[in-house]
Amino acid sequence: MLHAVIMAGGSGTRFWPKSRRDRPKQLLRLVGEATMLRQTVDRVAGLAAADQTWVVTGADQAAATRRELPELPEDHIVAEPCPRDTAACVGLAAALVAAREPDATLLMLPADHVVRPSDTFRQTIRAATQLVAEDPTTFVTLGVRPTRPETGYGYIEQGESLGERLGFRVYQVRQFCEKPDRGTAEQFLAHGRFVWNSGVFVWNAQAILDAIGRFRPRLAEGLDRIRAELGTPSQADALARVYPTLERVPIDKAVMEHYPNVKVIDVTYEWSDVGDWRTLAEYLGHDAAGNAAEGPTRIVDSRGCVVIADEGRLIATLGVDDLVVVQSGGATLVARKDRLDQLKSLVEGLREAGYEGYL
Amino acid sequence: MLHAVIMAGGSGTRFWPKSRRDRPKQLLRLVGEATMLRQTVDRVAGLAAADQTWVVTGADQAAATRRELPELPEDHIVAEPCPRDTAACVGLAAALVAAREPDATLLMLPADHVVRPSDTFRQTIRAATQLVAEDPTTFVTLGVRPTRPETGYGYIEQGESLGERLGFRVYQVRQFCEKPDRGTAEQFLAHGRFVWNSGVFVWNAQAILDAIGRFRPRLAEGLDRIRAELGTPSQADALARVYPTLERVPIDKAVMEHYPNVKVIDVTYEWSDVGDWRTLAEYLGHDAAGNAAEGPTRIVDSRGCVVIADEGRLIATLGVDDLVVVQSGGATLVARKDRLDQLKSLVEGLREAGYEGYL
Repeated sequence: MLHAVIMAGGSGTRFWPKSRRDRPKQLLRLVGEATMLRQTVDRVAGLAAADQTWVVTGADQAAATRRELPELPEDHIVAEPCPRDTAACVGLAAALVAAREPDATLLMLPADHVVRPSDTFRQTIRAATQLVAEDPTTFVTLGVRPTRPETGYGYIEQGESLGERLGFRVYQVRQFCEKPDRGTAEQFLAHGRFVWNSGVFVWNAQAILDAIGRFRPRLAEGLDRIRAELGTPSQADALARVYPTLERVPIDKAVMEHYPNVKVIDVTYEWSDVGDWRTLAEYLGHDAAGNAAEGPTRIVDSRGCVVIADEGRLIATLGVDDLVVVQSGGATLVARKDRLDQLKSLVEGLREAGYEGYL
Repeated sequence: MLHAVIMAGGSGTRFWPKSRRDRPKQLLRLVGEATMLRQTVDRVAGLAAADQTWVVTGADQAAATRRELPELPEDHIVAEPCPRDTAACVGLAAALVAAREPDATLLMLPADHVVRPSDTFRQTIRAATQLVAEDPTTFVTLGVRPTRPETGYGYIEQGESLGERLGFRVYQVRQFCEKPDRGTAEQFLAHGRFVWNSGVFVWNAQAILDAIGRFRPRLAEGLDRIRAELGTPSQADALARVYPTLERVPIDKAVMEHYPNVKVIDVTYEWSDVGDWRTLAEYLGHDAAGNAAEGPTRIVDSRGCVVIADEGRLIATLGVDDLVVVQSGGATLVARKDRLDQLKSLVEGLREAGYEGYL
């Protein structure tokens, strides 16, 4: 049976001031009417029933996540005591699912990406589960064909072609590449066989646990101590005690780069990780001067701006270009569009500056 | 006896969003702890008692003005039914004062300028009243030595030197010059005998009424119809009926440019009309990168900005230069500093855009 595990961590900095500690990106209505988390759950609903759907989230966000997803069993919304990167998260999720159903197939996916249309996504996952059914030691990744020399994503190099499944092209993975510099990203783009790692994985629950044991034995030992108490009254205690001690490492680096049997499916759906305000603007309407606006705004003689206001609060711009202006819940950000990579550090600096209330 | 008449009109656009229709510039605390109007009244208090102090303001602002100046007799705060420029305002004020005291000397001054120190200002006015006492047909203006080729002010050309009064140099006025273009302003600055018209006048009440009668007979006729009912129960009716029909013209153009006996005193106090957010910034503290900030702000990697936030609402800037960012009462302005001359038209455009509530 397929279980879907939605990774819904995130510290809520890249969409500040709209995103906050207790209202991170996946709980915002950024694109479309529903939150990104709601859309993600709805997207996998045709693949996994509520009883086979899990969400791993942060302690700060667990309450809001439960409110957002009342149809999920309460114990399927798992709060990490603290963020320990994706390897620990993957291990915990696999342990939880394997405790119920040792032979389960796991779909792991981020909570905050835009994927359209959902039908094509589901069909791609069906192709991936078919690959795992053919060979339970296979790990399947989904690769997005790059459209620009992006330096913010990891890449996957496609190796030998393995034909098609349900009409999607499948390749052996030759290598995983961490976020490249600009020159390398341009080479990847020109080369043609490097695809973006979209952070979606399909694998057998026991197989990924075995692989963690093989490549990250200390992490596996920690996970085993948690597994020993899963389903007992001391589960929460074990999690609180052990989870913070787990190694903090991405699953790509911990396992995927070393594992010999990884496949990648060529994705044909539209995909975006909507990484910042600038990327979000691509999903909003634009005026003739390239301004994207939401809420009460008055944009005069300005070009290429993203202007987002809370209802009942007006933002007026005059003679400005290429700015992001966002007003939300008592805080306003005015940033140059090409400086949003520093937004995280700006938000982190608010605490020292005595503005913790705006985090 | 000297009567002080403070001209406190203004539509509240140049300091939007802090200034609004019912809260124009003179009712804001822009420089120092008190409103500009309060500071102006306090400045003239040593020259004219409350019973000799008058304020002419707009109908929208009369209530707030009375609250701000409880010590003034209620009928000394005069609400223009609609703005009719300075000639009508001067005529109305002169008529009101002359009805009480036909031989009064009038000090007319704007409500929203920065003048420091007040002592020097008062001493200058005493020199001016001395000139009027010597010759009641004299009109006295106060000229500020220009420090830049400003195109936003009118200029006065000094003629023959008339010596000193109380230590201040006095000149016959050769000519009044309207706001010049840039080249002309540069010539004025280089020439050395052109000073800024600071909009302060001292004259005999009857003499200015006579001069209006001579150079603007139709305006004088209208004023006469109001004068006929001053102090009667129908005063307010007469004002409401006649004032809107008066010619709309500045006193400089209506009278001063034509009147043969105008003197100008060389001002030695610090003066600014604080015409916009950019000018205001000169009165605020600056960080090393030239940013002036008030209220809760977090300014990152930004230069030359003016950032003003309401208490309890944070503004953060990231990587931006030479912007004015002001958040006040539900509205936020983000403008290039060198485009503030268009702020008035932006604010006027809010009505058509359906944002009347922010005016």
